[in-house]
Amino acid sequence: MKKYLITVSYDGTDFFGWQKQNGLRTVQGELEKAFSLLFKEETLCFGCSRTDKGVHALCQKVVFTANTTIPPDKIPLAVMKFLPNDISVFDGKEVNMDFNPRFAVKRKTYRYTIYNAEVRNPLRRNYTEYVREKLDLDKMKKAAVFFIGEHDFAGFCSAHTSAKTTVRTIYDISVEKTSENEISIYVTGNGFLYNMVRIIAGTLIFVGMNKIIPENMLNIIESKDRKKAGKTAGPSGLCLINAEFE
Amino acid sequence: MKKYLITVSYDGTDFFGWQKQNGLRTVQGELEKAFSLLFKEETLCFGCSRTDKGVHALCQKVVFTANTTIPPDKIPLAVMKFLPNDISVFDGKEVNMDFNPRFAVKRKTYRYTIYNAEVRNPLRRNYTEYVREKLDLDKMKKAAVFFIGEHDFAGFCSAHTSAKTTVRTIYDISVEKTSENEISIYVTGNGFLYNMVRIIAGTLIFVGMNKIIPENMLNIIESKDRKKAGKTAGPSGLCLINAEFE
Repeated sequence: MKKYLITVSYDGTDFFGWQKQNGLRTVQGELEKAFSLLFKEETLCFGCSRTDKGVHALCQKVVFTANTTIPPDKIPLAVMKFLPNDISVFDGKEVNMDFNPRFAVKRKTYRYTIYNAEVRNPLRRNYTEYVREKLDLDKMKKAAVFFIGEHDFAGFCSAHTSAKTTVRTIYDISVEKTSENEISIYVTGNGFLYNMVRIIAGTLIFVGMNKIIPENMLNIIESKDRKKAGKTAGPSGLCLINAEFE
Repeated sequence: MKKYLITVSYDGTDFFGWQKQNGLRTVQGELEKAFSLLFKEETLCFGCSRTDKGVHALCQKVVFTANTTIPPDKIPLAVMKFLPNDISVFDGKEVNMDFNPRFAVKRKTYRYTIYNAEVRNPLRRNYTEYVREKLDLDKMKKAAVFFIGEHDFAGFCSAHTSAKTTVRTIYDISVEKTSENEISIYVTGNGFLYNMVRIIAGTLIFVGMNKIIPENMLNIIESKDRKKAGKTAGPSGLCLINAEFE
């Protein structure tokens, strides 16, 4: 019996999130089904992040144990034929039996993308949050820097969290025009509370709409008051784009 | 009774193409349903291009007649509430009663996008053609220029065409790296035969794979032999991105 780590990317649109749930189509559920078929025995998968319904990932890190002669780097190609086409896997390697990606992950990066134009683009509807009102990119950039550092993000967290502490460190955040009508927010941190990136995105959208002034951001964070931050932006704009271990 | 022109964009993934077909979900069918609800009487729609199943459009040009007091520029917003979210409409204006977008269109531009990487990207699966083998971009650029000008494209056309002549003019074609793992082919012409852009794309993919040498392109075109060109590339990479009238 050996333990393996692979990287998984998925289009979250047609999944009820990462986590296995009875009778619902989830990424964890589909992966376990595929690996169980490949290895011909029940195989459980564990990821580094539990992404929500509609949220995407380009690099979910996943472990499983198996009794197999397939070399680690050939496992991704071998399992692909059992996977639906909205999941892709790559970069297989062996890890120590005590490796747990959820605890081993030290830095995660999420991208949140906004489609900002008068007219909706149907081709981007599942991958962006649509905002019709013209956003002020410079103000969003100015406001974003206040998130950097260690803060108590109690105000940027949905009520039903089970986290022991609401203190998190954001190493880096940037707001960039990534295409003609799109603005992406890149956030790297040591961990994120439930809905934290989507509330940061919703708050920066309010800044872009001139509903919050950038100079107020630190007060809003320090107030730890969920009501002072912006709305929780929708899931489709969110994508886990990087996860790093030690 | 007045005639109106609007621009329509759609994600072709979940449609059986543009053209109305009994019992199938088509773009024309959904538009006619929406306009019939808005104007409270049966409304027929006519487009400038009949895109196939899975093919996308950012600017299909569509006309319909209606008896309405809604100003032309307000019609798009008014009809949006009757449309599914994989169709978007904009830019409404009145046109002459004898205006037919299919015959009035003088230049159309299609974009064909290839996802070229070792690993599939599930987020791009509906909008690109996946090619694993590394493509030679320079050779594709070199080969593309041979398509420019007036040619008999009989060899770049699927068998079941009803076209009177297979002569078409390509005004411009370019092959560009549009993002880290994507190559887009932009083709502008006065009109296109059935599957012509997809066969051009499939042929340029063969060039990128070194199965066809660029210097052979003119011979292949002039041979008018479908077997000498490449495969018909899949529909998901194709998008109608511009249509211009006089």
